[in-house]
Amino acid sequence: MAKNLTQQLIEQHLLDGKMTHGEAIHLKIDQTLCQDATGTMVMLEFEALGFPNVKTELSAQYVDHNLIQADFKNADDHLFLRSASRKWGIWFSRPGNGISHAVHMACFGIPGKTLLGSDSHTCAGGAMGMLAMGAGGLQVALAMAGLPFSLVMPEVVGVEVTGKLPPWVSAKDVILEMLRRYDVKGGVNKVFEYYGPGLDNLTAMDRHVIANMGQEMGATASVFPADDILRAFLKQQGREDDFVEMQAEEGADYDHRETMDLSKLEPMIACPSSPGNVVTVREVAGKPIYQSYIGSSANPGLRDFVIPAKMVAGKSIPEEISLDINPSSRQLLEEISRTGDLNTLLQAGARLHQTGCNGCIGMGQAPASGRISLRTVPRNFPGRSGTKEDQVYLCSPETATASALTGKITDPRDMDMDYPDYSEPEKLNDMRPLILAPEDTSNEIPVELEKGPNIQPLPDFDPLPEVLSGPILLKAGDNVSTDEILPAGTDILPLRSNIPAISHYTFSRIDETFYERAKKHNADCFVIGGDNYGQGSSREHAAISPRYLGVRAVIAVSMARIHRRNLINFGIVPLLFKKPADLARLNQDDMLELHDLPKQLQNGREVEVQIPGGKTLTVTHNMSEEEVATVIAGGLINEVRNEKGNE
Amino acid sequence: MAKNLTQQLIEQHLLDGKMTHGEAIHLKIDQTLCQDATGTMVMLEFEALGFPNVKTELSAQYVDHNLIQADFKNADDHLFLRSASRKWGIWFSRPGNGISHAVHMACFGIPGKTLLGSDSHTCAGGAMGMLAMGAGGLQVALAMAGLPFSLVMPEVVGVEVTGKLPPWVSAKDVILEMLRRYDVKGGVNKVFEYYGPGLDNLTAMDRHVIANMGQEMGATASVFPADDILRAFLKQQGREDDFVEMQAEEGADYDHRETMDLSKLEPMIACPSSPGNVVTVREVAGKPIYQSYIGSSANPGLRDFVIPAKMVAGKSIPEEISLDINPSSRQLLEEISRTGDLNTLLQAGARLHQTGCNGCIGMGQAPASGRISLRTVPRNFPGRSGTKEDQVYLCSPETATASALTGKITDPRDMDMDYPDYSEPEKLNDMRPLILAPEDTSNEIPVELEKGPNIQPLPDFDPLPEVLSGPILLKAGDNVSTDEILPAGTDILPLRSNIPAISHYTFSRIDETFYERAKKHNADCFVIGGDNYGQGSSREHAAISPRYLGVRAVIAVSMARIHRRNLINFGIVPLLFKKPADLARLNQDDMLELHDLPKQLQNGREVEVQIPGGKTLTVTHNMSEEEVATVIAGGLINEVRNEKGNE
Repeated sequence: MAKNLTQQLIEQHLLDGKMTHGEAIHLKIDQTLCQDATGTMVMLEFEALGFPNVKTELSAQYVDHNLIQADFKNADDHLFLRSASRKWGIWFSRPGNGISHAVHMACFGIPGKTLLGSDSHTCAGGAMGMLAMGAGGLQVALAMAGLPFSLVMPEVVGVEVTGKLPPWVSAKDVILEMLRRYDVKGGVNKVFEYYGPGLDNLTAMDRHVIANMGQEMGATASVFPADDILRAFLKQQGREDDFVEMQAEEGADYDHRETMDLSKLEPMIACPSSPGNVVTVREVAGKPIYQSYIGSSANPGLRDFVIPAKMVAGKSIPEEISLDINPSSRQLLEEISRTGDLNTLLQAGARLHQTGCNGCIGMGQAPASGRISLRTVPRNFPGRSGTKEDQVYLCSPETATASALTGKITDPRDMDMDYPDYSEPEKLNDMRPLILAPEDTSNEIPVELEKGPNIQPLPDFDPLPEVLSGPILLKAGDNVSTDEILPAGTDILPLRSNIPAISHYTFSRIDETFYERAKKHNADCFVIGGDNYGQGSSREHAAISPRYLGVRAVIAVSMARIHRRNLINFGIVPLLFKKPADLARLNQDDMLELHDLPKQLQNGREVEVQIPGGKTLTVTHNMSEEEVATVIAGGLINEVRNEKGNE
Repeated sequence: MAKNLTQQLIEQHLLDGKMTHGEAIHLKIDQTLCQDATGTMVMLEFEALGFPNVKTELSAQYVDHNLIQADFKNADDHLFLRSASRKWGIWFSRPGNGISHAVHMACFGIPGKTLLGSDSHTCAGGAMGMLAMGAGGLQVALAMAGLPFSLVMPEVVGVEVTGKLPPWVSAKDVILEMLRRYDVKGGVNKVFEYYGPGLDNLTAMDRHVIANMGQEMGATASVFPADDILRAFLKQQGREDDFVEMQAEEGADYDHRETMDLSKLEPMIACPSSPGNVVTVREVAGKPIYQSYIGSSANPGLRDFVIPAKMVAGKSIPEEISLDINPSSRQLLEEISRTGDLNTLLQAGARLHQTGCNGCIGMGQAPASGRISLRTVPRNFPGRSGTKEDQVYLCSPETATASALTGKITDPRDMDMDYPDYSEPEKLNDMRPLILAPEDTSNEIPVELEKGPNIQPLPDFDPLPEVLSGPILLKAGDNVSTDEILPAGTDILPLRSNIPAISHYTFSRIDETFYERAKKHNADCFVIGGDNYGQGSSREHAAISPRYLGVRAVIAVSMARIHRRNLINFGIVPLLFKKPADLARLNQDDMLELHDLPKQLQNGREVEVQIPGGKTLTVTHNMSEEEVATVIAGGLINEVRNEKGNE
C-alpha cells in the first residue's frame, strides 16, 4: 500500500511497536532541541540520570525565552546551559541568536529526520519534511542520551491544499482556518500531513507558520513534503547539500481527509482567549486596539516583517498604538537592517525589541488594562500576555499592521493600498558561526557545570503508594492550559531552574490560594480537570510543581498529549472520567481513596475510586504497560535509576 | 567684571535673589523635561495643584525608563502620560523614541535657555550652552506652571580644557578623571564650566557625556559654550536656526579653577560600587568579565556605538560574554542600521536591545551572580543593575568593547588594532515627526486623563507638628543613594505611580525590615544618614515614600542637592549634624523629641534635639526662609493649595 509521508517517517525510525492507530510505538530520535525556559530542567535531568554525553546526530540548546535578566537568575541560567552544552556535546546558541524553531530550521533541520524538542512548537520543523514533535523535558533528556521516544501511533489527516492565497491573506490565515475547524483539541493524537498543488504557493516559512500552530489543535505533529520549495530554502541558508526529497507515495492513503482551497480564504482572527476561538477579521473589525505585536515562532519568516514594513512605509502609526517588532532571529534582523525595512518600520513609529520570544511568553510588552492587543503569536491563553483579563487576538502580520495603522481591528483588504510585492532573497547570512559547536561528541568533556544559586537540583519523588488517599485540592474547568497550571511571565519564568521556588505559583492563575492550601495539607492530594486538560506549552514544571506539592493523580475528561506524558514522567497518575457527566460527582475538598492502585493500573483500564458518601466512582486510564511501570516507580527518573542499579 | 557663561545664564533668568554663593535665587525656567519613571508623579502633582496648562516655552514628556511592560502598569502609565501631555500642552515622545536627554538635545535644546528636568541627568543639556538642571518632580511641575525655580547660588568652577584626546581615550575618560578628583560629592553646590582650546577637540555629544555625569559629582550643573561645534551639531539635526552663540566673556572670573589636559588622559574606570571609585583601567586589567553594556544617557552619541562596531568588525565576541547594545535614540538606531554598523555588531555576536534606558536603571540585562559587568552608564550604585552584590564598573565604550573581545578587563590601547576613524555625519534623520506636538498651549485641552488602576492619587500630608517625637527607624551610612532609599528595577519601577504600593520597598536595599517596622510603628519617626545622603537619581519617591511611612525628619552629615529639596517638598525636615562625630551619639531605635520645631526652624540655624539619657544634641539646618515655610506647611503641595485658598 502506498505510504503517506508520515508513515514513511515513522517507519524509518520505528524501533518497536506496531504502526496501528492507538498502539504504543518507539522511535529513534535523530535531533533534539531545547530552549532555556525548559532546557535548564532538561540539563538537570540529564545530570541526574548520569549520562556521559549526547548520542543523537545533533542536539541544540537555544536561549530565547528568558532574556530580560531582571536579576542574576536568567544570566546564571545562560551560563549553566553553556557549560552543560560544552560538557555533553550540544550546540549552544547564545542569547540574541533567536527563537529556537526559526534558528533550528535555518541551521540544522534536515528532511527525513526526527526532531524532539522541549518546546511544544518544535512541531514547526514539520515544514521541512521532518517528524518534529514537542515533548516534556525529561523525554528530551532521554532522547539526547540515545533512548527511544515512545508515543501513541497517531492517525494521519491528509490535508489536500489547492489554489493560491488571495492578496492580504497569508499562512497565518490558513492555520487559523484549521483552528476554526478543529478547535484546540481536534488534533489530539493526529498528524496533519499537507500535500497537493497548492503547496507550490507556500514558501518554507509559510509552512513553518502552519506547522508551528498545529500544536494549538493538539496535534502530535504536522508534516509537509521536502520539495523544490524546501530545496530553495536550504539553498538560501547555504545548506542545499542537506536537501533530501521526501514525499508521500503516489496514491497514499490517509486515516482522514481534509481540503484547503487557499483561494477561498480570507483574513481570520482568534478572539480572546483561545487559539480556537476563530472568526473572520470582518466580524470583529472596528474595535479600538492598543497594540500590534509582530514576531514569535508562529510568524518568524522574513516576509512576516517585510510586508508590515512595506505597509507602513511613509505612514505614521498613531502614537497611542504600540507597534512592537520582535525579530525572530539574528539573521532576520540583519536582513531587514540591510534592506532598509527596519528603518521603514522605525520611521513609522514602530518599537524594535530584542531578538527572541519576548512578549509571546509574557516577557514584556504586556498590553494596557482593558485594551486590545493584536498578535502574530501562536497563543492567547488568559493572562499569558502578562496582563490579567487581557484581550489578546491572534492574526496575520497583515491584519496586525493594518490595525496598527488605523488604530482599530481592520481587515487588511479594506486598506487603500496595493498588496506589497515580496520575493525571497536568494541568500541569507549564515548564523552557524555564532552557535558554539560541540568540541567532541564521543565523550564527556571535563567541563564544570556552572550553577548559580537559583539552580537547584530536582526533588526526589516517592513511588506510588498502595493506597492513595487525600482531598481534591482543586477542581478546574475545560481547556486548562499549562500556562494556567504554572504561569510564565517576568516574575515566574526566571524560576524555572528551581522547583521549590517556582512551586509557589502552581495554579496561581486559577486559584491564588492553591500553594498555601497545598503546603498546609502537606500530603497526597488530587486535581480534577475538564476537557483538554494541560493544553499548550510543553513545560514539565506544570507536572513537577504540582507533584512537589503532593498532587499524585489528576482526573480529567480528556488530556493534552504532552502534559499527560509529563504527569506520568513525574509520577502523577493521569486518570479519565468514563463519561464527562461524572465530573459533576466530584467537588473540591472531597476526600478520595484509591485502593491497590498499582495493581488496579496493571490489571486493566478501569480504576475504582472511593468517593464521599461511601460511594464508588469508576474512572479509566489509557497508559501503556510501560507508562504504568513509570508512574508506579514514581516517575521516569526513579525508573531509569532503578534499571541502572539492576545492571 | 567679565562674566563667565554660568553667570550670564543665571543673570538672564534671575527673577529674585542675589548672585552670591550660598544665597537663595529664583530663576525663570524656559524648558522642562520629564521621563516616565518620574513623570507620572509630576503629572499627578500638576493635576493636584490644579494648573490649567503649561506656561514654559517648551515642555516635553519622554517615555524611556519603564519599557519592559511585565504587566499592564507600564503601558497604562504611557497612556496616562500621553493624555496628560495632550491636556496640558506638552510634547509627548512615545516609547521607542529614546532616552530623554539624547532626544531633547537633538530635538529641542536651545543655547542660552534654562532647562529643568525630573531626571538628575538633565544636566546633560549643559553641553548646549544651556543651564540644565535636574530637580524633584514637584519642582518641575511648578516650573511647568510658569513658577520660578529656587536654588542656592552655586560656585562656578572654571575647567580649562587643553590638548587633544589620545587614541583610545574618549569623553568618558574625561569625566571619570573629574570623578577621580572630585568623588561623588565634590561638586555639591557647584557648576562646572568648561572652556579653553581643548574644547575644539570635543564634539557636542562628547560634551554631553561630560555634562551628564557632572551629576555624579553632585554638581548643580555643567556648562559648555555654544560655539561652532555646537552649531555643527544643530545643523546635523536640521536646527541650525536654533543656534545662539554663548561664551564666557573675555577674562571671565571663576570661584575655582581646574585644568584638564586631554592629551595626558588615559582610559579610566570606576570600580564597584561608586562612580567616584575611579582608577586607571590598567590597574584592574585582567579580571574576567561577564558583560559589556553599551548605551545609556552617559554615552548616547553615535560615535559611542560606531567605534565599538568598528572594533568588533570581523571578530567574534566569546559566547559566554554578553555584549549588550542599547540604542539611545531612534535616530541613532536608524543611523547605525543605515551605515551597516548595526550588522557589524550583530555579526560579532552582540545583542541588540530596545531603544531606551534599559539596564542602566535595572530594567533588564542584570549580570550573572558574582560576575563583572562593564558599562558605559553613569552609575554603579550597589544593586542598581538588578543583581544583589553586583560588580559593575563604569568605563568608556572603547574599554567596554576591548574587554568584551578579550573576555577580561582590557585597556583598549593594548588591543592589536588601529584606533578606528570616526567622523560625524552631516545630517541625521529628524525625530520630531514622531513626537506628538501640543495642539494648543494657551488653554487646557478637554482631554480626559487616562488613569489605569495602578495610578493612584498623591497621599495628603499633615503640616509639621509643634512637637516632633518618635524613634530612629534607620541609621544609614555614607553616600546612601536614592537607589538605596527607593530602588528601581523591574519589580519596583512599575509602581512609580502608586505611593502606597511602592512604599513597601522603602530602604529595602539597606534593611528589608524597614517597611514592616514602619507600618507597625505607624507614627512619626526619624532616619539618620552619613555623608552625602540622597545622592544620585532625582526620584522624589525617595522622599514621598518615607514620608508616607511616617518619616518626618532626616538628620545627616551632609545631603545631596536634589534629594534635600525633595525632602522639603514633601514635608520632611532636613537636618545636619554640627560635626560628623555627633553621628555616633545616635543609634537606631533611640527616641528623639524636637520641641517647638516650627519656631526653632524659623528662628535660626540651630535645632535642639532631646536624645536618650535626658541629653540634648544640637543640629543645624540650612533651609532658606521659603524652604522653612514649605516644610512647616507639610510640603509644597499644601503650601501652594493654601496660597490658592488665600487668593
